Amino acid sequence: MRVFDSNWMQIAAYLQHDDRVVLPVGSTEQHGYLSLGTDALLAERVSVEAAEPLGVPVLPVLPFGMAPYFTEYPGSMSLRISTYIEVMRDLLDCLASQGFRRIAVVNGHGGNAPVAGLIREWINRPREHRVQVVFHSWYNAPKTAEAAARFDEDQYHGSWLENFAWTRVAGAEIPTGSAPVLPRSVANNATAQEMRALSPDGSLGGAYQRSDEDMQIVWDAGVAEVRELLEKGWLDQ
Amino acid sequence: MRVFDSNWMQIAAYLQHDDRVVLPVGSTEQHGYLSLGTDALLAERVSVEAAEPLGVPVLPVLPFGMAPYFTEYPGSMSLRISTYIEVMRDLLDCLASQGFRRIAVVNGHGGNAPVAGLIREWINRPREHRVQVVFHSWYNAPKTAEAAARFDEDQYHGSWLENFAWTRVAGAEIPTGSAPVLPRSVANNATAQEMRALSPDGSLGGAYQRSDEDMQIVWDAGVAEVRELLEKGWLDQ
Amino acid sequence: MRVFDSNWMQIAAYLQHDDRVVLPVGSTEQHGYLSLGTDALLAERVSVEAAEPLGVPVLPVLPFGMAPYFTEYPGSMSLRISTYIEVMRDLLDCLASQGFRRIAVVNGHGGNAPVAGLIREWINRPREHRVQVVFHSWYNAPKTAEAAARFDEDQYHGSWLENFAWTRVAGAEIPTGSAPVLPRSVANNATAQEMRALSPDGSLGGAYQRSDEDMQIVWDAGVAEVRELLEKGWLDQ
Amino acid sequence: MRVFDSNWMQIAAYLQHDDRVVLPVGSTEQHGYLSLGTDALLAERVSVEAAEPLGVPVLPVLPFGMAPYFTEYPGSMSLRISTYIEVMRDLLDCLASQGFRRIAVVNGHGGNAPVAGLIREWINRPREHRVQVVFHSWYNAPKTAEAAARFDEDQYHGSWLENFAWTRVAGAEIPTGSAPVLPRSVANNATAQEMRALSPDGSLGGAYQRSDEDMQIVWDAGVAEVRELLEKGWLDQ
Amino acid sequence: MRVFDSNWMQIAAYLQHDDRVVLPVGSTEQHGYLSLGTDALLAERVSVEAAEPLGVPVLPVLPFGMAPYFTEYPGSMSLRISTYIEVMRDLLDCLASQGFRRIAVVNGHGGNAPVAGLIREWINRPREHRVQVVFHSWYNAPKTAEAAARFDEDQYHGSWLENFAWTRVAGAEIPTGSAPVLPRSVANNATAQEMRALSPDGSLGGAYQRSDEDMQIVWDAGVAEVRELLEKGWLDQ
Amino acid sequence: MRVFDSNWMQIAAYLQHDDRVVLPVGSTEQHGYLSLGTDALLAERVSVEAAEPLGVPVLPVLPFGMAPYFTEYPGSMSLRISTYIEVMRDLLDCLASQGFRRIAVVNGHGGNAPVAGLIREWINRPREHRVQVVFHSWYNAPKTAEAAARFDEDQYHGSWLENFAWTRVAGAEIPTGSAPVLPRSVANNATAQEMRALSPDGSLGGAYQRSDEDMQIVWDAGVAEVRELLEKGWLDQ
Repeated sequence: MRVFDSNWMQIAAYLQHDDRVVLPVGSTEQHGYLSLGTDALLAERVSVEAAEPLGVPVLPVLPFGMAPYFTEYPGSMSLRISTYIEVMRDLLDCLASQGFRRIAVVNGHGGNAPVAGLIREWINRPREHRVQVVFHSWYNAPKTAEAAARFDEDQYHGSWLENFAWTRVAGAEIPTGSAPVLPRSVANNATAQEMRALSPDGSLGGAYQRSDEDMQIVWDAGVAEVRELLEKGWLDQ
Repeated sequence: MRVFDSNWMQIAAYLQHDDRVVLPVGSTEQHGYLSLGTDALLAERVSVEAAEPLGVPVLPVLPFGMAPYFTEYPGSMSLRISTYIEVMRDLLDCLASQGFRRIAVVNGHGGNAPVAGLIREWINRPREHRVQVVFHSWYNAPKTAEAAARFDEDQYHGSWLENFAWTRVAGAEIPTGSAPVLPRSVANNATAQEMRALSPDGSLGGAYQRSDEDMQIVWDAGVAEVRELLEKGWLDQ
Repeated sequence: MRVFDSNWMQIAAYLQHDDRVVLPVGSTEQHGYLSLGTDALLAERVSVEAAEPLGVPVLPVLPFGMAPYFTEYPGSMSLRISTYIEVMRDLLDCLASQGFRRIAVVNGHGGNAPVAGLIREWINRPREHRVQVVFHSWYNAPKTAEAAARFDEDQYHGSWLENFAWTRVAGAEIPTGSAPVLPRSVANNATAQEMRALSPDGSLGGAYQRSDEDMQIVWDAGVAEVRELLEKGWLDQ
Repeated sequence: MRVFDSNWMQIAAYLQHDDRVVLPVGSTEQHGYLSLGTDALLAERVSVEAAEPLGVPVLPVLPFGMAPYFTEYPGSMSLRISTYIEVMRDLLDCLASQGFRRIAVVNGHGGNAPVAGLIREWINRPREHRVQVVFHSWYNAPKTAEAAARFDEDQYHGSWLENFAWTRVAGAEIPTGSAPVLPRSVANNATAQEMRALSPDGSLGGAYQRSDEDMQIVWDAGVAEVRELLEKGWLDQ
Repeated sequence: MRVFDSNWMQIAAYLQHDDRVVLPVGSTEQHGYLSLGTDALLAERVSVEAAEPLGVPVLPVLPFGMAPYFTEYPGSMSLRISTYIEVMRDLLDCLASQGFRRIAVVNGHGGNAPVAGLIREWINRPREHRVQVVFHSWYNAPKTAEAAARFDEDQYHGSWLENFAWTRVAGAEIPTGSAPVLPRSVANNATAQEMRALSPDGSLGGAYQRSDEDMQIVWDAGVAEVRELLEKGWLDQ
Repeated sequence: MRVFDSNWMQIAAYLQHDDRVVLPVGSTEQHGYLSLGTDALLAERVSVEAAEPLGVPVLPVLPFGMAPYFTEYPGSMSLRISTYIEVMRDLLDCLASQGFRRIAVVNGHGGNAPVAGLIREWINRPREHRVQVVFHSWYNAPKTAEAAARFDEDQYHGSWLENFAWTRVAGAEIPTGSAPVLPRSVANNATAQEMRALSPDGSLGGAYQRSDEDMQIVWDAGVAEVRELLEKGWLDQ
């Protein structure tokens, strides 16, 4: 249930019998030949598909994240960490004030991981009710990562692992081969300018594509793992 | 051209011959019987339709805005003003660093208006290139407001003026009559709790709906006015 | 009753029987041939005259506001919006903690308008008592604006509408004609440097002066409208 | 030369031949039987009198300072330190951008002293021109303090030392005796609630008044010392 | 070379021929029977031993980190993430301004990991010189983790892996058995109050101690890995 | 009792019968020929020696303070005031939440004095229990300053007064004469670049050294005065 496909009365009715909600967070940043919205599109879609049979509402994806190392590729946006943690704080505060007690932040972008620090701080602020917040990076959660690794261990930014029918864009022909793998020690420490020089097309390594059948297997694993989180990923209370 | 329907190379190519971009900003908040995403959906859609024939890229809508007076209606989100201005600053900084020189912030929510103060400050920060930023609240820009007023002067939050085929939600029957008009002096000064008591269904007044033909006339005016802004709304330099 | 003409015991005595207070906010910025303090002087004076017969205390004017577009004219000061909202928050917090429950922020400067966003947020923060805060830009409130418009529709920054005996300065001869009108679409989007080039003397348009009789009529309307606000501008509770 | 008695052209003309300016900072807080504006009124007045023969412009006093320990006395305002340093930063930035190179912050309130830390930081930020900023608490500068000590060593908050013709308020009869002296170790560590209990009338100790002749001697010392600062208080460059 | 065992002239001399520096960061937080300073002591010590033969200076450890989940155990301190990132920014800025170009942040506490987000942002801020900053959590770097895993896979907070001669405290007898292992999904999502209830002695699981011989092997691996980082962990330029 | 020589259970046991704690704060900054850690080392050491017989716990020193005027001397660190006050706020909040009710901040660096403003604000924030916080700059507290003045009135930064066996560093020969005294009016207003030019070795004036016997007398006075503070420096409640 997308929040944008609901009115407030429907959300109010839902809160009479459940207290879970999903906040997908993504990024607007270069993904090589793929959509600049890849991380946002996938985080929202995996959330919606996972939550649908459970009837759990899914907020619109926060489309902007932290990607300071990609800002030399036009169209890439990046929030400062000081900004991002305040956005997250505000959204969590709103949800908590309305009666949501189990919040799943489904993340589609590695650079957003530090916000987990804010979440750990947030759950410890004094408030009337205990509110659980789990931070779940869907694309490298254990079962999804395992499903992908069975196909190919090389699955870096902009590679086949992000290449779904719904992240491709019109007018872009995707190469058939592989991009050279940029070592993580380099990728983690490069500036935006260095990154653009190191990766002329924005792909950090690995094959550019796989068959739709393979991709569906990975996707199904991702959806299933988010759904399992929504069903069983909470502390007993 | 939605940025999410593009990859970075396409944006880079665009920047070779143009320097305009649209950033739609909305809100996730109660709109009576209509979608909680009304302000976001309309801001993004009016931007995309206006920009399409011009080839100007449109960023994904920032779906969260400032609506502290609606947070008692479940599903409504609100960023603090201190947060919101930093989000805007970061996005403008990214765009400026990539060569965009004329940025249209197309706004769909009245509560976001104070960010215009940040924009006036931002354009005055020292930077290498002059970057123009116009803040345009599409729904009450002169020509759009005039088109709407010809039908009905009463057009408050949640009323017919926001009731488009693309802001209605499944499972919600919209009343045929009118909601009593909440005086602006009350609406502007009420707290979230008072607001919910004053407006049990969230509509602040006026008829709930008009014919699709009428709505199309208003919509066309809105699209045309945003397009005119993109074409002629810039200072000569 | 100016707070600066009172000691704390007198304010404490007042709070035994009333809970209203006025906080005037202005700006220190160029006003063409007129005083750099025009907006501050007028906001404080209109507040004091309006409040006097009611016995409502008036704080000293906050003399610095948001005017980033005027900082190229020496003597103009500007606070960042991030600073200004914290100043306002602190002052409101102090007043609320002391028992004031109806606070009128009487504003004399257009650039300060975004602080209304903070006020709407502030009244929604949880606190023990409901505190009302109205934001009133005295110079363009309906009745005052109407009184002025009857004389002349052109009444821009630095024009006759701000030219009172108490905003003129020694040693400055004021022209008798009119300044060319700078279109709002230009004034709203110009940088400080552009503004100074566009308006060599700082007046944004219209006649430089009118007779003292005319000015008194406008002034009386402003005082009356602030007084009416203090008497009737509050929500019933 | 008060900035509020000038227009921008006069300040621009001044900057052709001088680069000094005075920013008085005060506080709005209880001073026993005296005006709630005592610290602000004195800081501004001592600045104006000192600067007058030199032709140095004096900004309007910043009327709000840091006085968290007095907020239980109605009418007392207090900015948080995080707010206050940003206000100071903004004002200094504006002055520096306009060509002022020697800025005297003339302070009338002990609680504002921590802003000196911001000033030391500010002068070290990289900028094109060296800008000097001196922070001068006029009331306890060496010569003024010595002039006062010759009369009476006990000169605490709200006592005779702040009792000038221009800090008394109508309707308040000032006692003739002395208030008991609150030890500094207590005054410095008391909360606002404790402070109000410890000092029922707000005076922290010493005689309530002295003759106008004595007061004039102290005042003259204060004015002379600020003037000396404006003339000789700068580093050679 | 500890910075605290040096004067500034010695650091200045060092900068004539090298540009590396180590900033150890730790935490003051409960470690079961072990010192509240465990993470800080180890981060500083491993840095000093690793840097010693290279002559690279080591700053004093930042003893306070982010540990909101442990604050119910007395003596545990926690900085908010918004604070911590500003501390890191300031320290990096100082180092960069003095000519350090390769900065190793050697971290001893898992909760500090989000600061890596600030570091990625910081290296992308415009500055005159490229400054590399590597963030290295010494205790779970690949080779150190492998050395530890050879002994025992269970090595949670407060267990044998942190139990060195230099983290034990006088007067505390350490149990010989094992603490029950708290699942990571629980530990990552528990509040401070829940954490204290879940782990009565503060150990999150595994054996409390191993022989000094075993510990030395782990320690040597940690020192060697930090030294390798200082020698080879930089991007070529 | 150093907190780093304790585990949390020992601190918990202490809190059963006492509620005092010491937080030493220092600086990492040039001290001429002496250790860059002089202010931190002395603040921590004087705290530990003073607290030892009382059994009061002493936190690890906060080694970084505010010293923007020394950053041109390599190895000197400086936090911005906006950062420093948040660090202090966080530490005080943690201590208060754990039951500490009397906190002594023992300061070793003049530039940190503005944090006293935060402390006065902090004690006035609403909280369940009254928490006292005293800010004590040990090196210029009355009795210690008097002990030092008996030897020599000239005792500026980097001079004999900071030259203890435990602040000297290996490999640095300390001159036998005196450094010229930099006037306070200069030292307080110089930028970091000017400071380095004015004081080539970093000493701001006075003899470089005195006998260990003399130094012990000063030291003993400092320890005694901190101990007296811990014993008697609190308001009765």
